Amino acid sequence: MRKLINAPADVVADALRGLAAAHPSLRVDPEGRTVVRADAPRPGKVALVSGGGSGHEPMHIGFVGRGMLDAAAPGEVFTSPVPDQILAATLAADGGAGVLHVVANYTGDVLNFRVAAELAEEEGVEVAAVRVDDDVAVTDGRRTAGRRGTGGILFVEKIAGALAEEGARLARVADVAREVDERTRSFGVALSSCTVPVVGEPTFRLGEDEIELGIGVHGEPGRERTARMPAAGIVDAALTAIDADVPLRGAEVLLLVNGMGGTPLMEQYIACGEAAEWLRRHGATVARCLVGPFVTSLEMAGCMITVCRLTPELTRLWDAPVETPALRWGR
Amino acid sequence: MRKLINAPADVVADALRGLAAAHPSLRVDPEGRTVVRADAPRPGKVALVSGGGSGHEPMHIGFVGRGMLDAAAPGEVFTSPVPDQILAATLAADGGAGVLHVVANYTGDVLNFRVAAELAEEEGVEVAAVRVDDDVAVTDGRRTAGRRGTGGILFVEKIAGALAEEGARLARVADVAREVDERTRSFGVALSSCTVPVVGEPTFRLGEDEIELGIGVHGEPGRERTARMPAAGIVDAALTAIDADVPLRGAEVLLLVNGMGGTPLMEQYIACGEAAEWLRRHGATVARCLVGPFVTSLEMAGCMITVCRLTPELTRLWDAPVETPALRWGR
Repeated sequence: MRKLINAPADVVADALRGLAAAHPSLRVDPEGRTVVRADAPRPGKVALVSGGGSGHEPMHIGFVGRGMLDAAAPGEVFTSPVPDQILAATLAADGGAGVLHVVANYTGDVLNFRVAAELAEEEGVEVAAVRVDDDVAVTDGRRTAGRRGTGGILFVEKIAGALAEEGARLARVADVAREVDERTRSFGVALSSCTVPVVGEPTFRLGEDEIELGIGVHGEPGRERTARMPAAGIVDAALTAIDADVPLRGAEVLLLVNGMGGTPLMEQYIACGEAAEWLRRHGATVARCLVGPFVTSLEMAGCMITVCRLTPELTRLWDAPVETPALRWGR
Repeated sequence: MRKLINAPADVVADALRGLAAAHPSLRVDPEGRTVVRADAPRPGKVALVSGGGSGHEPMHIGFVGRGMLDAAAPGEVFTSPVPDQILAATLAADGGAGVLHVVANYTGDVLNFRVAAELAEEEGVEVAAVRVDDDVAVTDGRRTAGRRGTGGILFVEKIAGALAEEGARLARVADVAREVDERTRSFGVALSSCTVPVVGEPTFRLGEDEIELGIGVHGEPGRERTARMPAAGIVDAALTAIDADVPLRGAEVLLLVNGMGGTPLMEQYIACGEAAEWLRRHGATVARCLVGPFVTSLEMAGCMITVCRLTPELTRLWDAPVETPALRWGR
């Protein structure tokens, strides 16, 4: 196991200690497993809280900050955070205007966020939830009822976070979060597996000449295992699957070309070039584009393509200032 | 070869096409292999130009933008750019106030930048050069006379870039670039090798239980091949080597914990936590910190630690606004 870690059981707490050392803008509790904006709670502002299994960094812990999340609850690797932890993040973030839970659609996350929301409401905090299910590859898998939440989570957190920063009320922030989810689709491809530290063995095996199309971010099975192909073919498979689900012709899109953790940026840019060319050929316009490892699966090689069909309002909110460890722009 | 590429010979041009699609703020020539700020030349501003072998992305092509580089010349993978290419970048960037070449200390780069500088001066462009040689691990290797340039290149480009943006003159920008280089030291550790696309085989072989201390960013040999060790031991080896070269006690440091391309962010944060703790124990203060894959070696697993002993002026310039694909902050 070629990993830069100490004890496998300590990876989440050890990473949170590093996050704390690097980012004074965050209040990090490595033992309680919460990451909160240092200036939280912000009175009168709707708070966004998310979380999920660790191993997908920078999601979610690197998305905490002005214009995005108010708090995150990182679980063990590829394991949902527990309700008490989500509750602690929710209470720390609440500024009296209610809290939006952004929940990836996995059975464990959905259940634990629901329990935490009930506990928070008992303490007088209003909670709404949006479930993100952007992955077109697989429906009703081992960890999910319905589709999985993957790269679209970043879009939901950024855009809804911008709206909350502007002072919108909870119901409106939740509506826009759902709108982003509805307009967003993803498809991932793995060139290699990854190894959960406490397991010590790869989650699955791929032959030297195999790739897996439609992979999930925990190494869940995809649609199809196939022979290695050039970047152009991989991108075509991903965008063809997305386009079959929601036609992209005529759309102005926000494009995320996301590295899965073990694929270098050079290759992500190669995939981006192919994706931009595919979209152009199919009558869509890339209005905004983000390239990098944002929603990862430990050291898995591969990429995910996520596309959101923009509206002028969503574009405006995407462009709004954000100041987190992983995304920073604007004034 | 598990790579997300098309033809191995096309990786640089294909990646540049993706860079162009993603970043309208850049003027990219995928065939001529130059990346220039879209608003270049900036009349009266000293221009910073860098370049080197590709495969280290986002360095340098992702460092082009306001407050950092005006242009970059990416060579073939792990191969110096040719003089004509550096000349084209230099002429495109020059705003009449002269050009600073930031050159990593490898024999090929030093030679080709020198030839390009002579050609540019024949065309009436004043050129100064700073050679970056921050790597303490190895002196006089296969590709170098003296020490290698690695993570410190980012610091030189960011800090000198900020000074140029403020309107400082060429001699002053060059002096500060040299000051940053003198105050900066790096040490890298590889947990795996990497494969140059046109070669198709790993550059070196590491056993499942081996790591290489003091690795170069092209897979050049390091100081020592040793048994796998925990993150705390790896960081201790790196910082002990740096501290032996320039004592860190009492220093306020800028710390870069740099992923080499195949190591996920979670592990980089674990290394960051260990580095911050090591520095605290040894009487140094982490004044600024950056974590992420910024100076990579394709899909190599491992990390590099880079430390710059700050002054108030260097801190101010580090904090100054920057707006590039890979680094963005400030107003």
